[in-house]
Amino acid sequence: MKYRVSIIGAGNLAWHLAPTLDNAGFGVAEVYSRSVKKAKSLVERLYQAESKKNLDFSNSNSDVFIIAVNDDAIEEVAQEIVLPAEDSILVHTSGSRSMGILSYAAVENIGIFYPLQTFNKEAKVQFDEIPICVEASTAYAEGILAEIGNSLSKKVVSIDSDQRRALHVAAVFANNFVNHCLRISYDIMKSEKLDGELIRPLVEETIRKAFQIGPERAQTGPAKRHDYETLDEHLDYLKENDELAEVYRIFSQYIVDCYPLED
Amino acid sequence: MKYRVSIIGAGNLAWHLAPTLDNAGFGVAEVYSRSVKKAKSLVERLYQAESKKNLDFSNSNSDVFIIAVNDDAIEEVAQEIVLPAEDSILVHTSGSRSMGILSYAAVENIGIFYPLQTFNKEAKVQFDEIPICVEASTAYAEGILAEIGNSLSKKVVSIDSDQRRALHVAAVFANNFVNHCLRISYDIMKSEKLDGELIRPLVEETIRKAFQIGPERAQTGPAKRHDYETLDEHLDYLKENDELAEVYRIFSQYIVDCYPLED
Repeated sequence: MKYRVSIIGAGNLAWHLAPTLDNAGFGVAEVYSRSVKKAKSLVERLYQAESKKNLDFSNSNSDVFIIAVNDDAIEEVAQEIVLPAEDSILVHTSGSRSMGILSYAAVENIGIFYPLQTFNKEAKVQFDEIPICVEASTAYAEGILAEIGNSLSKKVVSIDSDQRRALHVAAVFANNFVNHCLRISYDIMKSEKLDGELIRPLVEETIRKAFQIGPERAQTGPAKRHDYETLDEHLDYLKENDELAEVYRIFSQYIVDCYPLED
Repeated sequence: MKYRVSIIGAGNLAWHLAPTLDNAGFGVAEVYSRSVKKAKSLVERLYQAESKKNLDFSNSNSDVFIIAVNDDAIEEVAQEIVLPAEDSILVHTSGSRSMGILSYAAVENIGIFYPLQTFNKEAKVQFDEIPICVEASTAYAEGILAEIGNSLSKKVVSIDSDQRRALHVAAVFANNFVNHCLRISYDIMKSEKLDGELIRPLVEETIRKAFQIGPERAQTGPAKRHDYETLDEHLDYLKENDELAEVYRIFSQYIVDCYPLED
């Protein structure tokens, strides 16, 4: 069955998710955003949606309501939203917020529809490659979320709240920390008048290799081989930035401890 | 001119570099390795090389001698090697060791030929995409190293020792630390019975975006937005591994400090 969907939010995720739902036959009927302008921009990308100016959906024909706003705003939306039917399904898309946060809306069918990806408006997104993590309060809601997910992506995973919490921590390491390592790398190169692009083949090979043989086996470098001479040289190089030197020291020590030398 | 080359070492880098030199017309004449077996395996990949059992190259016809051994073994090789001519060129391939380490060999033309990549024998390598960093004690040697480099790669960069030192620190962040972030991510997912592959699209997009708009602008996540509630939840999740929790805390704090909130 092709369920009808309404979207709350017109940010980076909604920007890609709404047209993808449309194209998969789950017609997006309404878009709400605190910014009417943003809602209208998104509506222009859709077949038959209209922009809504408030969270009163009591006359809506939609079956599923997807909250795709900043984590901090989810609770407020759940408190304000008015849903049309007892069996309306209300979900949010956050990796870090609990499902219980949606209880304010006083409907039975609540859940999570969490695409494990980082979004920005400029970059094209191939949605079918993005894992979608699904969680729900009822089998009815879970079935529908899985059905929608499977129409958008090749990889839909049913997870519970503990797993989602772990996944969010894992995603911080894999996205936020990896990106900041790249920034540090860039900044060091810039300070020596070197082009940041120089490091790109190394980074791409790092990722390829990590997923090919697993990151545990893929590890190399001075910390892994307990080469304290090189570690000290690097700390000496970083000494003018105390905080960065401390990051280097703590992180290297953790690698050292994860790879005890064999006798 | 097509210089003749001898290679000292038969490890991961030599394994890819030697055939690449051969194919570019810089015939590899000799391969030395402490492991005769390894030297012979590499010789089998080459057109007309022979394996050598010692470091006495006094009868060699080669022009350039490339030391591609572990960082820790370079000095010993430089002490032992006997070169055929006053204008023989001796280089090593390390990102972290000084050029001066080669002075033991008592030749005027010493240098560095440092391909900025991680190598392992199994994975195919597209050498022409790998930046090669070149440094030399004389203009004569630098000219020849640049000529060889340009025959192997689209990107040859002339750098000095300070830049190379910085580049090596940058590479530790971009390779070793990035890889270890992925291992942490994997381990967290494994502990919750989640497949590590789940995170792959996110990591690939992270890298793509970082190089597209620059990692400084690409940063997202709880630390960047000073979301201490989420940071505390993550620290709570990690609390059974003190050392990892400390890595998370220090690294997050560094992101917080790199991105002061705008008023």
